[in-house]
Amino acid sequence: MNKPLINKLAIIGVGLMGGSLAMILKEKGEVGEVIGIGRGVENLQRAQELGIIDRYTQSLKEGLADADVVVVAIPVASIVNVIERGQQYMKDGAIITDVGSVKGDIVKDVDMILDGRLSFIGGHPIAGTEKSGADAAFAELYNGSRCILTPSLFSDENALETIKKMWELTDARVVVMDVEAHDKILAAISHLPHIVAYALVNTVDGIKDFNESILKYSAGGFRDFTRIASSSPEMWRDICLMNKTALLDLIDAYVSELGNMRTMINEDDGQGLMENFERSKNARDSI
Amino acid sequence: MNKPLINKLAIIGVGLMGGSLAMILKEKGEVGEVIGIGRGVENLQRAQELGIIDRYTQSLKEGLADADVVVVAIPVASIVNVIERGQQYMKDGAIITDVGSVKGDIVKDVDMILDGRLSFIGGHPIAGTEKSGADAAFAELYNGSRCILTPSLFSDENALETIKKMWELTDARVVVMDVEAHDKILAAISHLPHIVAYALVNTVDGIKDFNESILKYSAGGFRDFTRIASSSPEMWRDICLMNKTALLDLIDAYVSELGNMRTMINEDDGQGLMENFERSKNARDSI
Repeated sequence: MNKPLINKLAIIGVGLMGGSLAMILKEKGEVGEVIGIGRGVENLQRAQELGIIDRYTQSLKEGLADADVVVVAIPVASIVNVIERGQQYMKDGAIITDVGSVKGDIVKDVDMILDGRLSFIGGHPIAGTEKSGADAAFAELYNGSRCILTPSLFSDENALETIKKMWELTDARVVVMDVEAHDKILAAISHLPHIVAYALVNTVDGIKDFNESILKYSAGGFRDFTRIASSSPEMWRDICLMNKTALLDLIDAYVSELGNMRTMINEDDGQGLMENFERSKNARDSI
Repeated sequence: MNKPLINKLAIIGVGLMGGSLAMILKEKGEVGEVIGIGRGVENLQRAQELGIIDRYTQSLKEGLADADVVVVAIPVASIVNVIERGQQYMKDGAIITDVGSVKGDIVKDVDMILDGRLSFIGGHPIAGTEKSGADAAFAELYNGSRCILTPSLFSDENALETIKKMWELTDARVVVMDVEAHDKILAAISHLPHIVAYALVNTVDGIKDFNESILKYSAGGFRDFTRIASSSPEMWRDICLMNKTALLDLIDAYVSELGNMRTMINEDDGQGLMENFERSKNARDSI
């Protein structure tokens, strides 16, 4: 039997993202042992029942001791803190990576605190569903999606190569770029849309001229369109604040685009609106 | 057998909306005969094959001659014109209604041109799918949705009662209101969301710092969220221009809401963002 890519893998946070990754690596025989680390024992037990992890612990010390690769798959606001607390227990040469959907603040902070014995590769597989927890994990989650890696100046080349291979095993397309590029792309395709959806629902719900919320009149289109406004307020608060610079730029560009459309409507510029909507439809249909 | 609600029904435009309505009235035995009127013979033939209509014609004169109720189910920009050309062929006391998603401009214009022998009841069943044409019609389309009727000062009470009963047969919840209320509600739940989606796709697609469109990085959430940006540019140009007053007000309210969020992000106001996102999530979850 071939040597697996990773001998011992520790997953901090065995949910949809971390659980699906572990599941794939185990299925492909590319990991020797998977140790789940987390706070909720029920979820960890369930992950073990499902065969996603081999064993689990609530202790960073115990779980990180022999790990060759550590995947931090927890909410963005806690990633740096957990790395700071956990790195003392890791062995020389261990590789740390994460799946957080912002990178700038995380990579900068980890670079400042990281023990020189260790490597850190910022990572962000762009995938997800509405569900969470080990029960939601499935082996096709990353199939066909993109996974962005953002090594910093201090990242080790071999470590980058290992993390790249790890994500390629999930059938994601791996792209390496700097943190600013990542944060700009994610502000555009994910963070701005959430702001846009939250603001839309609040605007519509804020109209109080009728006896009932006019959301009651909405049909399927509105419900689909605003589904992302049901996302976790806590998670999106953290993402917005951690990707502030890129997000503020995008909000400004977006408000300017809305302003152009407003002018066209106000001036009965049917030709302009038509061209504008067609450009949008073509771009959307090309996805 | 009971007398049906409508003896002869003419449907101008036998597509998703008009076709589904005719299908339900026939299934329930509440219409004596359904005449389909349209430009595309293929679609009319298909509607007849499917049993949605009893016969069809491309001639307004022929199709409207004996109709008791005429449902105009064509794009908003053509409704007034078709009523203007067709009313001379209608018999005394015939009732005209429409399914257009703007009402103010249509009701105002019809009131100005309408022959005193006839009644007009503005109508808008809030339902739809991505599909169009007679093939897309199905009897459950209006089930549980709202149908707004906007009678004008000149509308006959009995005519309103007939159109109300007609829509209640589709299991829609019928609500009667004035045109301004309708146009404000629709601007909020439908027209603004389309503007928001078109502007979002254009903003994201307009970022040219990378070798490829960053839309390529988008995952399922973005695709769902922007699906309505694939809607017909022509149709949405017409709707925007015909509901200009209400839509401009809503765009302004929306940009102001976005501005509040921008300020909170810029000032690291995590508490404010959290409350704002929670309000939105609660409203969305209540739909």
